[in-house]
Amino acid sequence: MSRSIIHRRRTPAGAAPGAFVTPSEGPPPVLRVVRSDGESVVEETPAGAREAFDLVAAGGVTWLDLQGIGDGALLAELGGLLGLHRLAVADVANAGQRPKVEDYGDVLFVVIRMVTADGADRSAGHDRWEQVSLFLGRGWVLTVQEAPGDCLDPVRRRLREPSRSIRREGADYLACMLLDAIVDGYFPHLERIGERLEELEVEVVEAPDETTLAEVYRMRRELMTSRRAAWPLRETYSQLLRDGHPLLTSTTQPYLRDTADHVFQVVDVIETYRELAASFVDVYLSSLANRTNEVMRVLTVLASIFVPLTFLAGVYGMNFDTRAPLNMPELRWEYGYLAFWGIGLALAATMLLAFRRLGWLGGPRRSRSGKRREAPR
Amino acid sequence: MSRSIIHRRRTPAGAAPGAFVTPSEGPPPVLRVVRSDGESVVEETPAGAREAFDLVAAGGVTWLDLQGIGDGALLAELGGLLGLHRLAVADVANAGQRPKVEDYGDVLFVVIRMVTADGADRSAGHDRWEQVSLFLGRGWVLTVQEAPGDCLDPVRRRLREPSRSIRREGADYLACMLLDAIVDGYFPHLERIGERLEELEVEVVEAPDETTLAEVYRMRRELMTSRRAAWPLRETYSQLLRDGHPLLTSTTQPYLRDTADHVFQVVDVIETYRELAASFVDVYLSSLANRTNEVMRVLTVLASIFVPLTFLAGVYGMNFDTRAPLNMPELRWEYGYLAFWGIGLALAATMLLAFRRLGWLGGPRRSRSGKRREAPR
Amino acid sequence: MSRSIIHRRRTPAGAAPGAFVTPSEGPPPVLRVVRSDGESVVEETPAGAREAFDLVAAGGVTWLDLQGIGDGALLAELGGLLGLHRLAVADVANAGQRPKVEDYGDVLFVVIRMVTADGADRSAGHDRWEQVSLFLGRGWVLTVQEAPGDCLDPVRRRLREPSRSIRREGADYLACMLLDAIVDGYFPHLERIGERLEELEVEVVEAPDETTLAEVYRMRRELMTSRRAAWPLRETYSQLLRDGHPLLTSTTQPYLRDTADHVFQVVDVIETYRELAASFVDVYLSSLANRTNEVMRVLTVLASIFVPLTFLAGVYGMNFDTRAPLNMPELRWEYGYLAFWGIGLALAATMLLAFRRLGWLGGPRRSRSGKRREAPR
Amino acid sequence: MSRSIIHRRRTPAGAAPGAFVTPSEGPPPVLRVVRSDGESVVEETPAGAREAFDLVAAGGVTWLDLQGIGDGALLAELGGLLGLHRLAVADVANAGQRPKVEDYGDVLFVVIRMVTADGADRSAGHDRWEQVSLFLGRGWVLTVQEAPGDCLDPVRRRLREPSRSIRREGADYLACMLLDAIVDGYFPHLERIGERLEELEVEVVEAPDETTLAEVYRMRRELMTSRRAAWPLRETYSQLLRDGHPLLTSTTQPYLRDTADHVFQVVDVIETYRELAASFVDVYLSSLANRTNEVMRVLTVLASIFVPLTFLAGVYGMNFDTRAPLNMPELRWEYGYLAFWGIGLALAATMLLAFRRLGWLGGPRRSRSGKRREAPR
Amino acid sequence: MSRSIIHRRRTPAGAAPGAFVTPSEGPPPVLRVVRSDGESVVEETPAGAREAFDLVAAGGVTWLDLQGIGDGALLAELGGLLGLHRLAVADVANAGQRPKVEDYGDVLFVVIRMVTADGADRSAGHDRWEQVSLFLGRGWVLTVQEAPGDCLDPVRRRLREPSRSIRREGADYLACMLLDAIVDGYFPHLERIGERLEELEVEVVEAPDETTLAEVYRMRRELMTSRRAAWPLRETYSQLLRDGHPLLTSTTQPYLRDTADHVFQVVDVIETYRELAASFVDVYLSSLANRTNEVMRVLTVLASIFVPLTFLAGVYGMNFDTRAPLNMPELRWEYGYLAFWGIGLALAATMLLAFRRLGWLGGPRRSRSGKRREAPR
Repeated sequence: MSRSIIHRRRTPAGAAPGAFVTPSEGPPPVLRVVRSDGESVVEETPAGAREAFDLVAAGGVTWLDLQGIGDGALLAELGGLLGLHRLAVADVANAGQRPKVEDYGDVLFVVIRMVTADGADRSAGHDRWEQVSLFLGRGWVLTVQEAPGDCLDPVRRRLREPSRSIRREGADYLACMLLDAIVDGYFPHLERIGERLEELEVEVVEAPDETTLAEVYRMRRELMTSRRAAWPLRETYSQLLRDGHPLLTSTTQPYLRDTADHVFQVVDVIETYRELAASFVDVYLSSLANRTNEVMRVLTVLASIFVPLTFLAGVYGMNFDTRAPLNMPELRWEYGYLAFWGIGLALAATMLLAFRRLGWLGGPRRSRSGKRREAPR
Repeated sequence: MSRSIIHRRRTPAGAAPGAFVTPSEGPPPVLRVVRSDGESVVEETPAGAREAFDLVAAGGVTWLDLQGIGDGALLAELGGLLGLHRLAVADVANAGQRPKVEDYGDVLFVVIRMVTADGADRSAGHDRWEQVSLFLGRGWVLTVQEAPGDCLDPVRRRLREPSRSIRREGADYLACMLLDAIVDGYFPHLERIGERLEELEVEVVEAPDETTLAEVYRMRRELMTSRRAAWPLRETYSQLLRDGHPLLTSTTQPYLRDTADHVFQVVDVIETYRELAASFVDVYLSSLANRTNEVMRVLTVLASIFVPLTFLAGVYGMNFDTRAPLNMPELRWEYGYLAFWGIGLALAATMLLAFRRLGWLGGPRRSRSGKRREAPR
Repeated sequence: MSRSIIHRRRTPAGAAPGAFVTPSEGPPPVLRVVRSDGESVVEETPAGAREAFDLVAAGGVTWLDLQGIGDGALLAELGGLLGLHRLAVADVANAGQRPKVEDYGDVLFVVIRMVTADGADRSAGHDRWEQVSLFLGRGWVLTVQEAPGDCLDPVRRRLREPSRSIRREGADYLACMLLDAIVDGYFPHLERIGERLEELEVEVVEAPDETTLAEVYRMRRELMTSRRAAWPLRETYSQLLRDGHPLLTSTTQPYLRDTADHVFQVVDVIETYRELAASFVDVYLSSLANRTNEVMRVLTVLASIFVPLTFLAGVYGMNFDTRAPLNMPELRWEYGYLAFWGIGLALAATMLLAFRRLGWLGGPRRSRSGKRREAPR
Repeated sequence: MSRSIIHRRRTPAGAAPGAFVTPSEGPPPVLRVVRSDGESVVEETPAGAREAFDLVAAGGVTWLDLQGIGDGALLAELGGLLGLHRLAVADVANAGQRPKVEDYGDVLFVVIRMVTADGADRSAGHDRWEQVSLFLGRGWVLTVQEAPGDCLDPVRRRLREPSRSIRREGADYLACMLLDAIVDGYFPHLERIGERLEELEVEVVEAPDETTLAEVYRMRRELMTSRRAAWPLRETYSQLLRDGHPLLTSTTQPYLRDTADHVFQVVDVIETYRELAASFVDVYLSSLANRTNEVMRVLTVLASIFVPLTFLAGVYGMNFDTRAPLNMPELRWEYGYLAFWGIGLALAATMLLAFRRLGWLGGPRRSRSGKRREAPR
Repeated sequence: MSRSIIHRRRTPAGAAPGAFVTPSEGPPPVLRVVRSDGESVVEETPAGAREAFDLVAAGGVTWLDLQGIGDGALLAELGGLLGLHRLAVADVANAGQRPKVEDYGDVLFVVIRMVTADGADRSAGHDRWEQVSLFLGRGWVLTVQEAPGDCLDPVRRRLREPSRSIRREGADYLACMLLDAIVDGYFPHLERIGERLEELEVEVVEAPDETTLAEVYRMRRELMTSRRAAWPLRETYSQLLRDGHPLLTSTTQPYLRDTADHVFQVVDVIETYRELAASFVDVYLSSLANRTNEVMRVLTVLASIFVPLTFLAGVYGMNFDTRAPLNMPELRWEYGYLAFWGIGLALAATMLLAFRRLGWLGGPRRSRSGKRREAPR
């Protein structure tokens, strides 16, 4: 739970801007490089930042694909070689940044949040969110993600296929494709949430209990997390579309707009789901109130029938001295006992009839508006 | 239910932009062409994209009316011939886009959602939403809808009538008419919802039960769907009106504004209905609370009357040894039994009077503000 | 009820823009003309559109005052003579438009909603809303309202008085006066609602029942209707003030601003009333909860006192064989019966004392914060 | 109550713009004039508008301080002499305007709402709101308030002190000081509300009853009124700061900004209080639900213990013919009665233990999360 | 409590702008000066304002670090020497200002709120908020905080370290670092709140009682306070970034943007926490309703089983004269007593079965949707 709501920063408060602390746990980071010269595509795993930079310097379009932020020295060295601002490098390491775009002149820095289904548990609410930092330079793209495993494989696959246009376009096109793939990853996440909400919708109406509410509530939290990822992205894309950037050529403009459209759709879906989940609480509470009402009705019907009868039985259990002629003459009647049962049954029948009229017995009742309806169960 | 809330995309996450998967189910798409040269109007059903394009090339105003998105090859070919961007063509096939307008220079691309009453079930909440993609080029309009059956028949009819101005105007006028017809289709949809809400309003006050709430809730979902269709349309039209476009002549400007007015009205009505439906939940919950209160009151009145009496009867059913003069001398009184009933009835009467005063018996009571009012039933 | 929430359009969905259907019911429309040449004011009732137009053409300031939209031919003819756009004429006939202002170059078209108290029933919630369409041309004003009877009589009266400035000013001043009179009509309407809300405020606190809530709810609906009339008007006036128009001279500017101020005030009052009415629901629900609590307390106090006593009475009503010395020796005690009553009364007193301490008996109790307070009734 | 929510206008709907009706009740208006020539300050009480105007015409900085709007003729005459627009004069008389600033070229007209503590009752919710109209001209300031008694005395005092800068600055500085003094008056008002809210906060948690809610609700109304005064003021000041005005010299700019800061603070505080008061309703409702729960628990515990026992006692009160050996042999047992009590007490003890486990008895219980906590009382 | 919600101003309403009253309580203010000439850094504690100003005048970058606002004369003297506007000096002393930035030409004045953990009690909700006033001049920075003890120590430490860039940059860089350190201090504060919310989340679902709600409510208040500190800061930073200022060099631009990012993150977190805390109230109320339902069910089950049995026992406790053959012949049956128990047990078993079916006994029940689920406890 603490995972999604509280993000504990590793740098202490008051640390110098640009300072960062890399996480010590987790697998060691892996740096892969994919370089395309328009014709062929080469994939390599350079030994260090220097080797990676040599590949960038060799021309063409290079994608530096760093998975894991555990190696601070590597990050710093790469940053230095590529000319990244130290605040931007710190933002990469201090994951948990808000999605944003920053313009450092010849480098465009984008922070975005990526969601990937957990390997084992693919049910709603167990997806993993992580920060992806993307730097777009002249001829190269650097992406850094918090841990290995992502939703960028389709892009890698398309790069490997010889005929795809992705090989012929520039670095900005590659960056757009990567961002698009990350945003595309929101849809299966939302579909999982949507499916869970539909199940909950049935539950909340038909058989709600405390676990239902806890689940609704968990979905609301998931949606809060998604929302925090998607809303700033919306602004980010609006800004990119409005202001443009020298690094973004006019060819990529429609692709940027296409991704922006997806972001808007994501935000729409999140808002609709939030509203839906919120309405479940109303339904749940009214269902609870209904059930309390039902329980009360059972109690009242039962008590109403037996309490008067019990009183009557109590009366004829009294020990007044029946030698006085006015004291409980009924006891001496020949049919007294039968009369008692007769009166009792009549009383019970009257009561039942009255309750039936009030619609408390679950039978059909006539509503004031004149139409016949099933009474609530 | 999944129909309206979750829209499952057919393309896998991470697919290349511009990729699309056409749905395999459903009837085969039908392409019809209506061409007007200002004088006569010809309707044809071309064999393929090429034949359709020849008609466009022949001049005049041509409406390509494609019903169904099941034929990906046809879509791609048409797109190629008419010079549509492949992202736009993908948006046509990947139905479920957000309403939007996109400017591709010499083609204007509009996505809008259309609602049509289901053939069989015309009651509220069973209307079918689908995406309509409209391309406006120089001299032609292409509309693509998800399935046959729509609300564009009035436009087709007006095209067939010789005297109508629609035959003399340009392609932009035709596009405006088509969009207007689609927006006009929202009104009967909202009227159906409105009528259902009015019925529910009566129910929720007079005879609410769980089905009422479920129905209110279903209407809220319908309104969520309508809202997702209408709100982005509002922005779309504002944008069109503000920025204009070379393809839109000044003659169509008032018609555009007229449709924009209708969109604003639709949004107004949706918001009012949403507020109305939300207020029903309050009324429902208070009605439930009222009924629980009523049930409780019945129980309490009954118990309050009989519990003391039963105790009294219990007392005189005790077996104290009456030979001791202080042990239950009442039992030996000549009028003991009558006294018992007298006391009992007096007690019950007092209780009833007190409850009547509290207004628990449904009789008239005097409120603190001094005016006489009907007690709640 | 359907009156205010659903507005059923007379034109079928998909009708050509500019098409309209005039209502068939209602009294026949009346056209009156008031013409002022700065000196004298003449009132006439022309036979048809042509005669009316001749009066306009004669110069001065002419007010064409058409009451009723039942005569489509008259509307169309007037529209043609005055050079009105056919979409605007359709908006006049298809009443139920959103308030708006439209600039047709030499004609300014304003749609506004007017509220008038119903003749018979002047209580809150029975006011009649209708659309007023106002056209301002060079030297003339045309107003069309849905039915006779309005709140423009003060303007007519001022026109008849020789000394009033309204006679010396231009058509734009007249138009401003008419709009101002319509907006002024909102105030008595809101005062009626406000008075009803104040009554409801007393009721909801002192003696709420289901009719109270229904009434609160009706007021909320009234406010929804008012809001739909006032909010777009707010935008309309802001637009007029910001952009100006050649037909509006600088003299009328302060009057326009004055009316805009009134519109802002109306919106403020509506929002305050809406908030007020919404808070009544909270109060109502808590009042219900309070009453249920009160009922429960009565039941519990009663049961708590008598249930143990009844048990005790039951004990001594048992028939154990008292010949065994350990079987119910109390029955044989000389003061057993008195002891029973003593114990019983002591028990009841203890219970009552405990309940008094808990504040359940309505007597004074000491709150934890140490101050003495009246217990809730 | 009608005081703050409904403001009944004195002019009838449809009155000519610029028409006004002065209130007939209240003390007669008092006009005082304070004139400063940079050196000395003279206070006078002129006989009429003409005398007052002569003082203005004599140069220096003149403050016309009119307390009371009961004298329409005086208002009209003053307006005429000072060249005020008749709509502005009407706004002065028709108090209840929305705070605003209006630019009439050489006169700046500001409407603001002033709050003053009622002389007698200084508790929260009894403060008096009134409209202050301020006109700033070249060399003079005219303030008109609805009734004598205000929060401008500190300004008057500062004017009388020889050394204060207020005597050396221009009319715009004086106007700023007056507005600042009025805005400063909001703080004690809000502090009174804040103190009341703090008391209510304690009450609502510790000993809520219906009067608490009514009081919370009254505070909400007070805040609504304050909000209606402060929000438009916020816009007014933003507008003044943004657009400036020839009458406002650059020296007054910081003072204007200072007052704007105060207005923003006021709005902040109001919004915080509104949220706080709204949260009290939640707390109150949950407290009610808690108490109902508590009452129910007492009833249930009691009933659960005694109902089985009473049944048992009833059983042994039956009159089966004990001569049959299988009919109630327990009655004949020597220790039957003791056994009855033994069983009864064991049953009660078991029940109590079970309820203790459920935490219903108010004793300590172990929550599922394993920590020990005080059970709710 | 009054601490955070009501801020009582020390200046009386209507005081002259620029007037201020310094608090009399608290430790005496301490003025420290840190001066850096790019090479070495000197820390001094000047005797008074004049000595401090001499250090500023000596060149380099000087940080005047005044802790405590108790010495009004010192403040006024410092303000005079540094050329601060008297309104700004008043804002320093009248702590409780809204965060803002003000441009006085050659001095930039920033008000910000700082939160520091209380020394002793580091749990959530015991943090201390205070105002920090920061003046940035050419070559100097003056910070004034309400009391000693702050979160600026990391900056002081960095200044003392010879190698840090903070020594080489200008005054604007120092100001940015100070503001950044203050904003950084919000994160531990929010983390404490977040941790408390997580604990409450467990409590509210598993074992809610009144203290839980009071705690939730306290957290909501904390968040209100944080929000009032962070929201205006957001605007402040947006303004600084948008408009720039001659005193802010382009080197500090990225650091400013970095801090702005942190502010946006803080606002995001606060809004998420607010929503979370608000949802706890729903969960709490539904949990209460659940418990009432549970209590009611226990009562109803018990009553339903024993009430009919008690009636039966009552019947056979009646004293009808059994000499009449029709009067209670059961009493004379040989197995009457056994039959009574048989019937009684059968009845109880039937009842239990029925309740089990309804899911009232906590056993498994089959929901309508067909899946087996744990019944609510």
